[in-house]
Amino acid sequence: MNYPKGIVKPQHNSIIYSNRGMNLESDLNTTCEYYLQNDKAIIYKKPTPITISKVDYTNKKDAVIKEGHFRIPSTTDYNGIYKGKYIDFEAKETKLDYFPLKNIHPHQIKHLLTCKEMGGISFVIIKFLKYDKVFLIDISSLVKFKDKIPYTYFKDNVSEIKYKYNPRLDYLDIIDKMEDL
Amino acid sequence: MNYPKGIVKPQHNSIIYSNRGMNLESDLNTTCEYYLQNDKAIIYKKPTPITISKVDYTNKKDAVIKEGHFRIPSTTDYNGIYKGKYIDFEAKETKLDYFPLKNIHPHQIKHLLTCKEMGGISFVIIKFLKYDKVFLIDISSLVKFKDKIPYTYFKDNVSEIKYKYNPRLDYLDIIDKMEDL
Repeated sequence: MNYPKGIVKPQHNSIIYSNRGMNLESDLNTTCEYYLQNDKAIIYKKPTPITISKVDYTNKKDAVIKEGHFRIPSTTDYNGIYKGKYIDFEAKETKLDYFPLKNIHPHQIKHLLTCKEMGGISFVIIKFLKYDKVFLIDISSLVKFKDKIPYTYFKDNVSEIKYKYNPRLDYLDIIDKMEDL
Repeated sequence: MNYPKGIVKPQHNSIIYSNRGMNLESDLNTTCEYYLQNDKAIIYKKPTPITISKVDYTNKKDAVIKEGHFRIPSTTDYNGIYKGKYIDFEAKETKLDYFPLKNIHPHQIKHLLTCKEMGGISFVIIKFLKYDKVFLIDISSLVKFKDKIPYTYFKDNVSEIKYKYNPRLDYLDIIDKMEDL
């Protein structure tokens, strides 16, 4: 029998909604897909920026990239539109019990701040793998810290995005409460 | 002597602002960069979506992509924020004296329409190489056509983005007039 991703086989006549095996990116992509299908928002993950140096055009219908290098992204992972507003965010996982700010490039932080200044909604979604908890932190709160933000700060002060069946990580629900949209 | 891109060497004591040798994408990227530097808007071209199938991690600092394939993009080339509004557009060049609608994927047209419905600004920028002219057409006008849109229609009914020195293609000037922002 096939079960949807993220649902483990029923044990003792109960269904266990497990987060194990799902990473933050796939959970967010599934959530964005849900928003799109339900006309709630249009938010996509941007492709990874790559510099292509060699391409094989032998097969005209499917050119094959033979050499490429990963570039440092200019912007963030996700952007789009929600309730007429521009939305922009970065998503990060950490194994530690604090979030190291160096996990986000300085130009990405600058990008999020400028988007906010221009009237957009800018934030970072952070998953603490050790605790299996996901938080949404506004860019203005994040930049108050210098090196790292302890997990305890998140637990006590930052909105948690609780796992649900569908959408998996309903971050727009948090935005609704934060932004009074 | 070095001249800035797009300016040819002065002849007969005059400077000729030439468009030759510059393609639409590089002109738009230069324009977006100008908007960014002048705090006017944050608009980026999205990276080309690629499916990576082989990566060489021998050099830990610079993993090399050894095999990859181009994917059909889910969305459009450019998006971002302008005056607090979400902006989304596709850019296309044509050598013909009409614009074939099949040059834009149906799901990209759907994407532009949905962005507009949600309160965003959605359009297509089209360059007619033969005439060296660039136009900005609102998505609602574009979808009125079935197969192709003749150049004469653009000439008589669609806003032209005239080449300037800097920004090269000031498409936000057209948006200001269209959207009453």
